[in-house]
Amino acid sequence: MGKTLAEKMIAGAAKVADVKPGDIVWVDVDRAMMDDILGPRIQIAEQLKELGKPVWDPEKVVIISDHYTPPASIQQAEIVKFTREWAALNGIRNYYEFEGPCHQVMAETGNVRPGMIVLGTDSHTCMGGALNAFASGVGSTEMLGILATGRTWLKVPESIRVIWEGSMSSNVMAKDLSLRTIGTIGHAGATYMSVEYQGNTIQKLSMDERMAVTNMAVEMGAKAGLMPFDNTTREYLESLGIDEYEPCFSDEDATFCRTYRFRTEELKPQVACPHEVDRVTDVDNVGDIKIQQAYLGSCTGGRLNDLKVAAQYLRGKKVAPGVRLLVSPASRNIWREAGRLGYLEVIAEAGGIIMAPTCGVCVGLHSGLIASGETCISSSNRNFLGRMGSRDGRIYLGSPLTVAASAAAGWIRAAEEQ
Amino acid sequence: MGKTLAEKMIAGAAKVADVKPGDIVWVDVDRAMMDDILGPRIQIAEQLKELGKPVWDPEKVVIISDHYTPPASIQQAEIVKFTREWAALNGIRNYYEFEGPCHQVMAETGNVRPGMIVLGTDSHTCMGGALNAFASGVGSTEMLGILATGRTWLKVPESIRVIWEGSMSSNVMAKDLSLRTIGTIGHAGATYMSVEYQGNTIQKLSMDERMAVTNMAVEMGAKAGLMPFDNTTREYLESLGIDEYEPCFSDEDATFCRTYRFRTEELKPQVACPHEVDRVTDVDNVGDIKIQQAYLGSCTGGRLNDLKVAAQYLRGKKVAPGVRLLVSPASRNIWREAGRLGYLEVIAEAGGIIMAPTCGVCVGLHSGLIASGETCISSSNRNFLGRMGSRDGRIYLGSPLTVAASAAAGWIRAAEEQ
Repeated sequence: MGKTLAEKMIAGAAKVADVKPGDIVWVDVDRAMMDDILGPRIQIAEQLKELGKPVWDPEKVVIISDHYTPPASIQQAEIVKFTREWAALNGIRNYYEFEGPCHQVMAETGNVRPGMIVLGTDSHTCMGGALNAFASGVGSTEMLGILATGRTWLKVPESIRVIWEGSMSSNVMAKDLSLRTIGTIGHAGATYMSVEYQGNTIQKLSMDERMAVTNMAVEMGAKAGLMPFDNTTREYLESLGIDEYEPCFSDEDATFCRTYRFRTEELKPQVACPHEVDRVTDVDNVGDIKIQQAYLGSCTGGRLNDLKVAAQYLRGKKVAPGVRLLVSPASRNIWREAGRLGYLEVIAEAGGIIMAPTCGVCVGLHSGLIASGETCISSSNRNFLGRMGSRDGRIYLGSPLTVAASAAAGWIRAAEEQ
Repeated sequence: MGKTLAEKMIAGAAKVADVKPGDIVWVDVDRAMMDDILGPRIQIAEQLKELGKPVWDPEKVVIISDHYTPPASIQQAEIVKFTREWAALNGIRNYYEFEGPCHQVMAETGNVRPGMIVLGTDSHTCMGGALNAFASGVGSTEMLGILATGRTWLKVPESIRVIWEGSMSSNVMAKDLSLRTIGTIGHAGATYMSVEYQGNTIQKLSMDERMAVTNMAVEMGAKAGLMPFDNTTREYLESLGIDEYEPCFSDEDATFCRTYRFRTEELKPQVACPHEVDRVTDVDNVGDIKIQQAYLGSCTGGRLNDLKVAAQYLRGKKVAPGVRLLVSPASRNIWREAGRLGYLEVIAEAGGIIMAPTCGVCVGLHSGLIASGETCISSSNRNFLGRMGSRDGRIYLGSPLTVAASAAAGWIRAAEEQ
């Protein structure tokens, strides 16, 4: 019987010939990732010491201080310091700080490769699925076990197949496709499942765009969001100098518990309305929603292509009076590349405020919280009540292009189709 | 009897022929500036309402949200919102936010001109003296009176003359000159006095460099730090499209209560040691001080020339491991210009983290606080205990060039003389 990507990846990691949904198997973990907010400080450091265990393999552990950089309070500064020192103390050379959101840094540093099991203490770790890896978020207790042993158990998830076929309109991005998928499946519709993306639309997506899709698999409750391995994957890895990995392919006769088929031509720019990610509708349906803030950034919507699309839209335009367009590229590499290519300059010329790469805005820790009564259109991944600041504020999620168009309009608006 | 700059400016604003130190006179205020942290929210809005008075002249009031942008907490976001709304409610069109530190924005927007009386609710308002204006910080109660009446009383200050003569070494900047002056006069040595800068070194300083000097006059307790009007002033104002103003010149036989003469050739790169701005010594004297953070930015040390000098130094170098170089240009205009000229790219390539323009770092509100045990070398204006974060941290002040050299070395170091 044919197998899905999740089944094949888990079987590989468990070193067994075959697994089926519901099986509980032990796997070797290829990369254990911790960030600052949910990293060593969350009892992990303390309890590992209590266990008297060293980190099983410091080369397979990656620690990234991203939520609290640049620190906005003494407490945040102390946490970053603790995280940095704990990494050093435990011989973990793969420590990064101030570099940008962990998931992007994980990808850029070659810590996510096809076929790998990548587990991290951050829910959007599933982004790594774009690179044909089984990547998923875990809790601190689970991470403790992984650090001590290098292994963990996984229940083999059922798989949902999401097929997108056809060509995108010029004003549609992968984020719209991602939001539409979530709107259809629902915020709990894929709980503990693997979402496997297929179809010629997916095949045509750049790596930047693929990451915007798999990043949000967890917004359906999914354990993983997986993409096929192909030339785009190979080229991305090549650009990082990586050629050692084992790509994983699902079987044509794999068993999916559900299949969703979408026609991409029919897709219009989407928006997720407050305060749930699955409250998705066409941008054209939301009516006149005045905004005070537009946020272009995060591990979902701050990659090079996102900045390029926004810059192309904003060239020669201005951010509307009364709106602040905050821009936080998804990594320092992206910041530099977007600077070199002139995207940052164009966005700044239009009135955008270019910030350092950070998780701060997306999760309401610093760098641009909203006040009561304020509305933000954001290219990030969650619009939960109070996430970006006041609980009397509202967050809408849209594509980077929709964020740019809204910033210029002063209202939530889709870009015109070209 | 000859008059100093301060005496002439105050006499002009008081519309009297003559004043002498100690006189208390009423003056018309040309610009009243408030920021977010010490602006309308500090009882000003409430008490003005209680007085039943409108703002005397909304065109002469400038409000700048800079300390809390981008907001790092809901409280900060609410204060910015309140400040913005209060400005709108009171017909104050000169409202700026997210643009960068107020003093730089005041200068760039043409709100500081020769001969003006510029009073603001921020101690470094004295920076405006570089533009031959009588600019000074005031408290909220004083600002309330100004907003209601357009007038305030000033005690005519005694004047100290600070003369710098000679050429600067290639590794010395105006900041070094400023620190050396403060180290000599002491942190209370010019309390309620006007410091008038003279000499051919001062004449040769660019406007960027002049501002770095007058900005810190308050670090000697001075009411104002004043620079002569000359071609550099004229050209700066011309670049802003400003040609209406009344330059002020002090008399050759003006009376100064004290005169300090410095030979610029003898000046080496300076550093102010924790935790006072007047604990100034040659950088070469501080010994081996390891740093974790280097801060290049603020209304003192984040202007175009500062970024240029840092970029020139850092070209082809790398920030030392274990050091974070945080860069916050002094305004969005400067950010854009430094981007266009490639300075930001060079600094980022060296490992610098380019942030949005803000007061946040300098004053420890957000965007890069230090943790306990950490040491920061900073191009900003104050190194008080706990100002940039933990009270168990240490701040050294140096020139932008010293900040760049230290970031590359990992220790506090002066750049080599070329």
